Amino acid sequence: MLERFHVPAADEVRVPDQALRATVENIFMALGIAADDARQGADVLLYADLRGVESHGVSNMLRVYVNQYREGKLNPRGEFTVLQERPSTAAVDGGGTLGIIQGPKAMRLAIEKARQTGAGIVTLRNVGHTGAVGYHAMLAADQDMIGVSLTAGGVLVAPTFGAAPRLGTNPIAVAAPTGTKPRFLYDAATSVVAANKLVLADRLNVPLHGGWIAGWNGAPIMEDAYLPPRDQYVMLPLGSTREMSSHKGYGLALVNEILCSVLGSAVPAMLDPDSGSKQFLAAYDISAFGDVDRFKASMDEMLETLLQTPTAPGHERVIYPGIAEEEELSRRLRDGIPLHREVIDWFTQVCDELGIPPLEVA
Amino acid sequence: MLERFHVPAADEVRVPDQALRATVENIFMALGIAADDARQGADVLLYADLRGVESHGVSNMLRVYVNQYREGKLNPRGEFTVLQERPSTAAVDGGGTLGIIQGPKAMRLAIEKARQTGAGIVTLRNVGHTGAVGYHAMLAADQDMIGVSLTAGGVLVAPTFGAAPRLGTNPIAVAAPTGTKPRFLYDAATSVVAANKLVLADRLNVPLHGGWIAGWNGAPIMEDAYLPPRDQYVMLPLGSTREMSSHKGYGLALVNEILCSVLGSAVPAMLDPDSGSKQFLAAYDISAFGDVDRFKASMDEMLETLLQTPTAPGHERVIYPGIAEEEELSRRLRDGIPLHREVIDWFTQVCDELGIPPLEVA
Repeated sequence: MLERFHVPAADEVRVPDQALRATVENIFMALGIAADDARQGADVLLYADLRGVESHGVSNMLRVYVNQYREGKLNPRGEFTVLQERPSTAAVDGGGTLGIIQGPKAMRLAIEKARQTGAGIVTLRNVGHTGAVGYHAMLAADQDMIGVSLTAGGVLVAPTFGAAPRLGTNPIAVAAPTGTKPRFLYDAATSVVAANKLVLADRLNVPLHGGWIAGWNGAPIMEDAYLPPRDQYVMLPLGSTREMSSHKGYGLALVNEILCSVLGSAVPAMLDPDSGSKQFLAAYDISAFGDVDRFKASMDEMLETLLQTPTAPGHERVIYPGIAEEEELSRRLRDGIPLHREVIDWFTQVCDELGIPPLEVA
Repeated sequence: MLERFHVPAADEVRVPDQALRATVENIFMALGIAADDARQGADVLLYADLRGVESHGVSNMLRVYVNQYREGKLNPRGEFTVLQERPSTAAVDGGGTLGIIQGPKAMRLAIEKARQTGAGIVTLRNVGHTGAVGYHAMLAADQDMIGVSLTAGGVLVAPTFGAAPRLGTNPIAVAAPTGTKPRFLYDAATSVVAANKLVLADRLNVPLHGGWIAGWNGAPIMEDAYLPPRDQYVMLPLGSTREMSSHKGYGLALVNEILCSVLGSAVPAMLDPDSGSKQFLAAYDISAFGDVDRFKASMDEMLETLLQTPTAPGHERVIYPGIAEEEELSRRLRDGIPLHREVIDWFTQVCDELGIPPLEVA
C-alpha cells in the first residue's frame, strides 16, 4: 500500500490478531448472526488486517457493517439459496446478509463443481459488502485451483467522458498457488484507487494524488488535493483520462457489472443503488489442464524472474501481486495489528452498547 | 481509436471488404494453409479492419504473418491437438500455426462444453499471433453466452518499478450479447496502449502521449515524444506510474500469463521469448444462470443508461465498449476499408511474388 496510507506511529495501538478476531465474532453474534457465519465474517476482516489491507479491515469496514445490521439494511439470518444449477454453474441469492459471509460459501460451491467438471462458476446476488475480494479467490488457490472473484456494487465511478457516477469500484481478484514462493494474489479495484483509500486518506488528513478523482462536472482534477465533500466529486476509472486509457478501467468495471449483476439476475447499481453487492466466483482446477507440480514450479520460476528484474531509478525492488501482503502477514502475526486510537475508542463503545466483553489490547 | 491513429485522407485508398477478404484468403492458401483455415484467418483480419481496429488488421499484421510462414517460424499445417479434457475444460496445442486460425476452434470447443455443463474453459498453447482477441470472445456472445478471450505472448512491458520488459501487452476481451443495442465488447491490452499502436504512430509519424512508455532505464517518459529505437524503451502497464496504479495493469498482464501460459502447460515468454502466443478462452452459458431474454433486456437498459450519462466538458457523448466499432462496421461495409497507399503497394508486391491475382481496388 502507498506510504501515505499507513497509520501514524503516534496514533497506533497494536492488537493481537486472536483478540481482535474474538471481539469481531462476538460483535457479529450480538447482532444476531449465527456462530459459523460470524466466524466466517471475522475471518475475512482479519485476513485484510493481517495482510496490511487496512482499507478493507476492521477500521474502515466493521462500523459500517454494524450500522447496516442495526438499521435493518442487512439481514443477520440471510439464507444461501441456489436459484439455478448446472454441473459447472450455479446462480445463488445471498438473502441480504454480508458478502463476507456468503461469498466464501459461493466459492466453495464453485470449487466443488470444479472438482467434478474442471471448472465451477457461481454468481451471487443480494448481499452486503464483499470485503477484500482476494479472500474468496484465495480459497480456490488453497485447493490447487485458480480462483477468480469479481464484485460489482455501488455507484461511485464515472464512465470515460462522463460527469456522473455510474459504476462501483468493482474489484477483480485472481489467486494462484505456487510451490515455495508466497502465493500469487491480484486484488484491485477497477478505479484508479479503491473507494476505501479515499476515506482512509481523509481520516489520515493526507491529500489525494492528481488524477485520482474528477470534479462534480467530470473534469479530472490533475493536481494533488484533499478529498472534496461527497457530492462534489466523482471517482475515475483506472487510467484516469482517455489519453491514458481510462476507457480500459471503465470497461473492466462494466465487465464486472455484467458478470456479477446482469448474469446473476440482479439489477445493476446504476439502475437501483439499493440492489446491494453482487459477486462472480470462478474456480479452475489446475489438474484438469495439466500437471499440478509442473504448474507450481513454473509459477515459482516466473515469479522469481520478476523479482530479479533490474529496477528503475529510485526503486529498491520489483515485486509481484501478493508478496508484500504475505510478508506483512508474518510481521502482524508476530507484532499484532496496528489500529488507530480512534478505532480502539469505537470498539470500546460498541462492545459496551452490545453488552459483550471489551477488546483486549495487549 | 484515438484521432492520432487514423490514416490521413490524402494517403488513403478505399478497398471493398469482399475484395480484401478474397486476397487475404488467397495469400494464406498460397502459403500452404488449408482452405478452411485460410477462410478463418482472413475472417479475423477482416473483422478488425471492418470495425476500424487498424492496429490488428491487414496493414499492421498480414505482412508479419506472411514473413513468419515464409521463414518457417509458423507451420501452415499446424494441427489442433487436445492434450487433456474434462467435461468443462480442455488444454489444446495449436501446432505452431496462427492463433487467428486455432483460437476460434478453441473457443468453439469451449462453447460446446458450456452447452453441456454451463461453462467451458480451453487453454491454447503453441500458436502465432492471436489477432484482435475480441473476435474469439464474440463467437460466444453470438451463441447467447458470455465470451472471454485472454492472450499472453511477447516481452515488451516492464513490471512496475522495473527497468526491463517481462510481459507481453496481454490483452483481455469480454463479449456479451444484447437485445437491440450494439453488442458489448471489451477488447484492450493491459499496457497503457497496444504495441501495434506504437508501430502505427511511428508509421503515421505522430508523437506518443506522455506516460505511454519508459526509457531504457525504466523511468516513465512523461512528455509527448516520438517512438525511440526498439532497444531504447520499454512499454508501461495500464496505469503508467505506481501513483496512478500501474501495478494494476502489471498485475492484469501477469494474470493473463498465468491463465494462458502456466495453466496451459506452456512456458511464459519471459522465460522463453520464442514460445509463441498462448490463449485462455472461456464461454459461460447465460441460460445456465437465468433467463436469456431478461439478460438481454437488462443489458440494453444498462447500456442505454450509460449512453445517457451527462458529459464532462469538451466531450460529446459517453459510449460503451463495442459501440463505436459496430458503428464503424456499418460505414466500412458501405464505403470500403481505408488502407494506406504503402499497404496497397505491399499487396501488389506480395501477390506478384506468390503468383496470385492482385488486390482489386474499387
